[in-house]
Amino acid sequence: MPRSAHQSPQRENNADSCQAGVAAPIRPQGSHMKTRAAVAFEAKQPLEIVELDLEGPRAGEVLIEIMATGICHTDAYTLDGLDSEGLFPSVLGHEGAGIVREVGAGVTSVVPGDHVIPLYTPECRQCKMCLSGKTNLCSAIRETQGKGLMPDGTSRFSYKGQTIHHYMGCSTFSNFTVLPEIAVAKIRTDAPFETSCYIGCGVTTGVGAVVNTAQVKPGDNVVVFGLGGIGLNVLQGAKMAGADRIVGVDLNPAKKEWGEKFGMTDFVNPKETSDVVAHIVEMLDGGADYSFDCTGSTEVMRQALECCHKGWGTSIIIGVAEAGKEIATRPFQLVTGRNWRGTAFGGAKGRTDVPKIVDWYMNGKIAIDPMITHTLTLDEINKGFDLMHSGESIRSVVVY
Amino acid sequence: MPRSAHQSPQRENNADSCQAGVAAPIRPQGSHMKTRAAVAFEAKQPLEIVELDLEGPRAGEVLIEIMATGICHTDAYTLDGLDSEGLFPSVLGHEGAGIVREVGAGVTSVVPGDHVIPLYTPECRQCKMCLSGKTNLCSAIRETQGKGLMPDGTSRFSYKGQTIHHYMGCSTFSNFTVLPEIAVAKIRTDAPFETSCYIGCGVTTGVGAVVNTAQVKPGDNVVVFGLGGIGLNVLQGAKMAGADRIVGVDLNPAKKEWGEKFGMTDFVNPKETSDVVAHIVEMLDGGADYSFDCTGSTEVMRQALECCHKGWGTSIIIGVAEAGKEIATRPFQLVTGRNWRGTAFGGAKGRTDVPKIVDWYMNGKIAIDPMITHTLTLDEINKGFDLMHSGESIRSVVVY
Repeated sequence: MPRSAHQSPQRENNADSCQAGVAAPIRPQGSHMKTRAAVAFEAKQPLEIVELDLEGPRAGEVLIEIMATGICHTDAYTLDGLDSEGLFPSVLGHEGAGIVREVGAGVTSVVPGDHVIPLYTPECRQCKMCLSGKTNLCSAIRETQGKGLMPDGTSRFSYKGQTIHHYMGCSTFSNFTVLPEIAVAKIRTDAPFETSCYIGCGVTTGVGAVVNTAQVKPGDNVVVFGLGGIGLNVLQGAKMAGADRIVGVDLNPAKKEWGEKFGMTDFVNPKETSDVVAHIVEMLDGGADYSFDCTGSTEVMRQALECCHKGWGTSIIIGVAEAGKEIATRPFQLVTGRNWRGTAFGGAKGRTDVPKIVDWYMNGKIAIDPMITHTLTLDEINKGFDLMHSGESIRSVVVY
Repeated sequence: MPRSAHQSPQRENNADSCQAGVAAPIRPQGSHMKTRAAVAFEAKQPLEIVELDLEGPRAGEVLIEIMATGICHTDAYTLDGLDSEGLFPSVLGHEGAGIVREVGAGVTSVVPGDHVIPLYTPECRQCKMCLSGKTNLCSAIRETQGKGLMPDGTSRFSYKGQTIHHYMGCSTFSNFTVLPEIAVAKIRTDAPFETSCYIGCGVTTGVGAVVNTAQVKPGDNVVVFGLGGIGLNVLQGAKMAGADRIVGVDLNPAKKEWGEKFGMTDFVNPKETSDVVAHIVEMLDGGADYSFDCTGSTEVMRQALECCHKGWGTSIIIGVAEAGKEIATRPFQLVTGRNWRGTAFGGAKGRTDVPKIVDWYMNGKIAIDPMITHTLTLDEINKGFDLMHSGESIRSVVVY
């Protein structure tokens, strides 16, 4: 069920009165408002819920009221100080859904009231990458995004006069956030925020890796290493694409039941076999047509490659490895026809593909609701990180 | 100019009188003949020219009179004892051209007099690999070939009663050899043996890597590491495919002139730049669409990958690495869209594709003659290895 847009107590101008589908007048540039946010003031510390100052959208930017946000491993990775490019203080969060509340000058693709999913991988449709037709890695705002800033090199967030950085161009752990127009995907208004927010990262990353990157076809055999929030979405992507054998691999036996809910046909626990690669090669009569690493372990990435079928098997790295870690294999593995690839945001072009994935969800082609194991308030957001670290949650979602 | 078939003094039966285009009567199975051959009796020793006993073709096999054979790095690799699966004594050589002199029972695809190129990668058109349409790595006779034997598990070569092993299913360092029918490509009779033999390995490996594996298209930018006998063929494959920038990389400045003969547009000497990867990425405005390693160095393989364009660049490993060596990179290289692949025999299905490459040569679409820098007699074959090790030759060919 769709959540209706709610009025925000933080709003300081007449955009307060906006509701879904009602266009708001454009606020003069430079005006500001307050927003409640969970701020990462420093690495390895819990987030703090504070009221930030938020500048309104400048030209080409939009103000979004975030209605719900997932908590993803990448947020934890940055908060734990493992991301060498992580910046503090910052507003984390990159898996949200919300409503456009205001648009800056020149914005044409969305209007206030539109429901949107923020895109950490934007789609400008103008740069060399977008125009290549071969990748989703839009380069338009990459540099400033990596520095925690908006494309003009400044931040919209501040706290007691101190600059607070944006994060992955999204910062969905703030009730309101400002994004470039090219970094929002307009979605249908009947999609519930608290589940469709997951399409902002996990669902698209997993399903997209199958559909866009691997382009799995009916009859293919697929192996998925790591049945967390990404791996389950790879499973259901493979099922949707008509794969024959869909093998899930996880050290946690409880993941067997989870995998089966999302299309897994066979479960392998590496603890129960002396050689997981040989086991998979044998069970799939030569190996996987496509394998996916959703663990981030470089050792598992190697296994994922080497369990692929000689001649054509393709392994796709989804997981983010620890800084400094490297993948390795004998070149013979590639010379005999295996392919080693990777994917980011499931190879999805956000503004084009995310609305389609929302349709797949709303039409029942993929499921999301069972994966949202915990719903929290913003005040409870640190509990969401605890649930993730303990393995208790598939996905926790903060509903504003 | 085509070489005419010549009569062989070694022949012991009436097949002696065969000439190109004239079918010979089938000899009873089990009969034998003598053949002059360069034998690798043990690793790290020069080849010895001796007269071997050769059994005639059994069912599904053909007797080939080898007219010319190239000397390839892979022969040297095995002779140097670096191939952990190398067998001695054996008749090396896998890059030949010759004439069918006799066919065993049930052979239907060639007749005596046909000109052929032996295939170390056969094409049975019946196995899972061949039928997949996705690879050239026919598995029909892989096991016995790897053991230096014919598909029935025996050798046709012997010396003073001792078994001599076949090599890569070809053994072209023997004037006569026996091959499975599925391991010979029938070619046009006007193609000269002493140049078209190079299509049996080097030409097809290089040109095929571009055409079959990478599928380079007009406008693509290509980088080739290592401008030896394979690398030059990658260059001319890229030129034929319409690539824009064709960058050659080699430590030897003399290779600049060689590269330019075969379509290279830019030469990079890694000795003259502090960071060859950054240099190539900059000169190609983001990197290579396709890169090829033709060096066998795992360090160079990494450079070849990392100089590829973010989002789509594909690196293809052609070179054979030393036993035990591994390739490595940060997974981030793949997650940001680079693809790591390999190729064997240029992804060519031998019986189907080799005749086409012979046509390309005969029609002037690719050149071979300038690469054949040295022509030797069988007695001079060890000199061919010396020329290769010293870097003096691009390709030495033994003409029987």
